[in-house]
Amino acid sequence: MPRPSKRDDLLKHGLDVVHRHGFAASGVAEIAKAAGAPKGSFYNHFKSKDDFANSVLLAYFAEVCEALDEMVRPDGRRAPARLRSYFKQLRDYNARNGFQRGCLIGNISAEASTVNAETRALTGRLLSEWSKRLKPCLAEGQRAGDIRGDLPAARLARVLLDAWQGAVLRSKVERGPAALDDLIGVLLPQLLNASRR
Amino acid sequence: MPRPSKRDDLLKHGLDVVHRHGFAASGVAEIAKAAGAPKGSFYNHFKSKDDFANSVLLAYFAEVCEALDEMVRPDGRRAPARLRSYFKQLRDYNARNGFQRGCLIGNISAEASTVNAETRALTGRLLSEWSKRLKPCLAEGQRAGDIRGDLPAARLARVLLDAWQGAVLRSKVERGPAALDDLIGVLLPQLLNASRR
Repeated sequence: MPRPSKRDDLLKHGLDVVHRHGFAASGVAEIAKAAGAPKGSFYNHFKSKDDFANSVLLAYFAEVCEALDEMVRPDGRRAPARLRSYFKQLRDYNARNGFQRGCLIGNISAEASTVNAETRALTGRLLSEWSKRLKPCLAEGQRAGDIRGDLPAARLARVLLDAWQGAVLRSKVERGPAALDDLIGVLLPQLLNASRR
Repeated sequence: MPRPSKRDDLLKHGLDVVHRHGFAASGVAEIAKAAGAPKGSFYNHFKSKDDFANSVLLAYFAEVCEALDEMVRPDGRRAPARLRSYFKQLRDYNARNGFQRGCLIGNISAEASTVNAETRALTGRLLSEWSKRLKPCLAEGQRAGDIRGDLPAARLARVLLDAWQGAVLRSKVERGPAALDDLIGVLLPQLLNASRR
């Protein structure tokens, strides 16, 4: 039976490779090498590169959820302030890697026509789950009158996450924070503003 | 001297390949085959795959500009209506290809950490030029009081284009129009609204 730790190494270092280079450009040999594993052992842990892609996406999304749930849960601050803190935290995460990686889920979205149907469906489910986890904070802000109430919180959450993914794309091209700062400073307050309730 | 028409074929069919599969996953052999050209002839027309990438980006952007300049130029309608028509036209373009391709410039943005520095810089310049071409229409709407006037038109244009690129990513994953319709129906009016002037 394969040692679980080697699978964890393949996921951890493989995520790093896929996040930097994209899925199509990352070979099994390169992923195994990054994890210090012989290429053949890759298939002791994953049925295929597609199976690996799905596992990497799920591991990445577990990290996304941990940060998200921590930031947006009620803590005495009003909902818009918590949402702002959340996106600032994501901005700082991107700054720490020099704005070079973007979001793994966004990157695989851009590759959606090349990955297999299962990976594409999983990517869609993760985007949907991500916006669903933003929704309670938006709904709370709507009840408090801090966020516009004329649209379902679920739809606002989807629009906000889409806009974030687009801003991350430009920050990757520019290798700088401008697009993320535009989202936090311009789009977020304008999209949420309560004047249209 | 190489015949110009073969270079045009390589660009046209190569754009199709790169648009479907991404740049990293598109080989020179595949690009040449799509254009009905021997692989070796590729290098009669392009110094390298990177040189080809830059030419493809410029050819694609020329098409983007043609549609953009036609839609947003003054035609008797107010600026917000023209902007809405423009994004609806882009939506319909995506619908015609089954939402499978996304935007070539957005796709290469997602690959920004793998393409060479020159291609990344060119991608940034094209995104910047795209938002600059949206700006006059936004500025006109601001002067007429139809679009919020508390932010520079250039910044609004950048935010709007980022949000569009993010919506295109989700439409690619979902192979459907929902994200693009959210942008046109929710984000666009809310971002532009004049109530905050």
